[in-house]
Amino acid sequence: MEFPFERRIAACQRRLERNGADLVVCFPSPNLTYLTGFEESPSERHLLLFVPDTGDPALVAPAMYEEQLSELPLSELRLRCWTDADDPLEVAEDVLEAYSLGPATVLVDDRMWATFTQDLRELLPDAEFGLASAVLEPLRIRKDDVELAALRRAGDLADRVSLEIRARGDDLLGMTEAELASEIDRLLAAAGGEEPAFETIVAAGPNGARPHHHGGSREIEAGDPIVLDFGAFVESELEAGTARYPGDQTRTIVVGEPPAEYERVHDIVRQAQQAAVDAIEPGVTAGSVDRAAREVIEDAGYGDAFVHRTGHGVGLEVHEPPYIVAGNDRELEPGMVFSVEPGIYLEGEFGVRIEDLVVVTEDGAERLNDTPRGWETGR
Amino acid sequence: MEFPFERRIAACQRRLERNGADLVVCFPSPNLTYLTGFEESPSERHLLLFVPDTGDPALVAPAMYEEQLSELPLSELRLRCWTDADDPLEVAEDVLEAYSLGPATVLVDDRMWATFTQDLRELLPDAEFGLASAVLEPLRIRKDDVELAALRRAGDLADRVSLEIRARGDDLLGMTEAELASEIDRLLAAAGGEEPAFETIVAAGPNGARPHHHGGSREIEAGDPIVLDFGAFVESELEAGTARYPGDQTRTIVVGEPPAEYERVHDIVRQAQQAAVDAIEPGVTAGSVDRAAREVIEDAGYGDAFVHRTGHGVGLEVHEPPYIVAGNDRELEPGMVFSVEPGIYLEGEFGVRIEDLVVVTEDGAERLNDTPRGWETGR
Repeated sequence: MEFPFERRIAACQRRLERNGADLVVCFPSPNLTYLTGFEESPSERHLLLFVPDTGDPALVAPAMYEEQLSELPLSELRLRCWTDADDPLEVAEDVLEAYSLGPATVLVDDRMWATFTQDLRELLPDAEFGLASAVLEPLRIRKDDVELAALRRAGDLADRVSLEIRARGDDLLGMTEAELASEIDRLLAAAGGEEPAFETIVAAGPNGARPHHHGGSREIEAGDPIVLDFGAFVESELEAGTARYPGDQTRTIVVGEPPAEYERVHDIVRQAQQAAVDAIEPGVTAGSVDRAAREVIEDAGYGDAFVHRTGHGVGLEVHEPPYIVAGNDRELEPGMVFSVEPGIYLEGEFGVRIEDLVVVTEDGAERLNDTPRGWETGR
Repeated sequence: MEFPFERRIAACQRRLERNGADLVVCFPSPNLTYLTGFEESPSERHLLLFVPDTGDPALVAPAMYEEQLSELPLSELRLRCWTDADDPLEVAEDVLEAYSLGPATVLVDDRMWATFTQDLRELLPDAEFGLASAVLEPLRIRKDDVELAALRRAGDLADRVSLEIRARGDDLLGMTEAELASEIDRLLAAAGGEEPAFETIVAAGPNGARPHHHGGSREIEAGDPIVLDFGAFVESELEAGTARYPGDQTRTIVVGEPPAEYERVHDIVRQAQQAAVDAIEPGVTAGSVDRAAREVIEDAGYGDAFVHRTGHGVGLEVHEPPYIVAGNDRELEPGMVFSVEPGIYLEGEFGVRIEDLVVVTEDGAERLNDTPRGWETGR
């Protein structure tokens, strides 16, 4: 697969020009990973990517990363490594001087630590400062082919584990939520996942009424609705550079006979989820997708029991724009990927949530998860 | 044990006055944990602690944390929670107005994300901005009784696991480094550790010559020097608020007969470590402790093989000031805690490192680790 990084940096530069800004400075964050394929945790060491509106990008980094960074598939990247004998600020100053910025508009990574933004302000006393998301969010929100391929694989991986758990039927009885959560994590790893994309949610019976209940000590009983919300990161299939993309799907299943009101509620959530997916096409707002799901649930009389937004964008981060929430006027575009996950939560009784990731296509939406959405279990 | 948080906030306020600054603003970070006992990961949600030089501190936080935060043992803390219906910046503005700052000097958390420092700059257009470490580092660098108690327990815990591994002797043969690392992590958890303080290092034979080698597929053989560097976080024993402190110790052991040069090298490292500990007392510089260890190793002809600094401070963070490194003129003070970990690394052959955490006392140093420093194994 062709490396996307030079294309992404060029797109960033075009956006800089369009916005009248001169320079983006990134720090270890999803923005840095997006532009370079390099993933690292933030630390007190100066590791800064400079992308000017015209000219070559430069990366100031500790020498311990030199070998790894010199393998990045970015032919124009100027690598400026510093050792313990150097002052990293002098290296950064040198990079900035080569750009001859003058009074510039500099966009810093939204997550850059204050210690580094203070450094940049001292190096560029006449600059105006803004946030890198102004140019990078519009790029990252539309997934490219490399990203979609990884997100599809993450979807397939979660689906395989979901099918396996559902098929076990009676074998789930007597397991605690925590044991089932561990088993799901084990299956995700065995299927090739890097690590869970978030703490796996297994919420049985009344615990399902709390949207963020994780696996506890409750034993699963016949008739318990069980909310299963999980996914794992997968590595993109590039030969160089790193980029991990998450899966995220939810099914609510029952071993045995569900409680009286359950089947009706499950069906309402399923219809709400379908209505939201049906509402997706380029040009409609994120808020209107939330509305489509919410209307089904409100019309059925459960409006107060749908206590969260309908979905969130998914990419290098598990939660990122676009947020599928009331009042969000952002228009959907082809290539956006987000969750559609309405739910009904009945305190003291049970919860139901059904979630798929979807990608916006030229004329609608395509689901990245496709396992049965009913509650029935067993082979 | 008495809660330390009000005392720490009062000390922060005294430092603000002394430095002529008006306000500290913290963000989810070790600084926030230090001042409040609240631990959380950074996120896009506004969660900001305001500590003015005089008056009550205020915490602006998402409503989802309200219950948890209302239990913090800080009677004067004004808790200002915001819901999805609120603009968190209006809540922050309201807090700032109550402080009537005027043209102020505001110290922001060194790790605060740019998105939040930009917000603060918009709310306080006439303020001068600096970094919170100016007032908080001098406080955090001297550990109080609560911190020392937790660090002692973390030391004891690592020591128990170190003794257990050493006692196994012949049973270690044939295990891979990765298997032994897993076993150490299991023992740390079984002994009450929260999670490893850093990736456990097991480096056998020539792998020991790389200071940061983790556990790989090499099987441990008789005569392999094995560098074992590990520790776990323990929770402080407060009834409210959270604070985790790490253990960090290293021993190098051999099952069977070590290689020819080994015993001499092990002995040099042991003497260097002792010389560094002996050099510690209030008023001496961090650099001179490094010098004491390095001199022993240089005099024995292995100067080039001691490739890293002698140590690092340990507290809420596994690596924090003071750094025990050449040229650091910082004077040691009672209550500082740091590692003393000289090593000799012989490429292609083996490595030796011996590490204890120590606390500076009124007239010297006390080790927080106290297991045998020799290489012999077995019961």
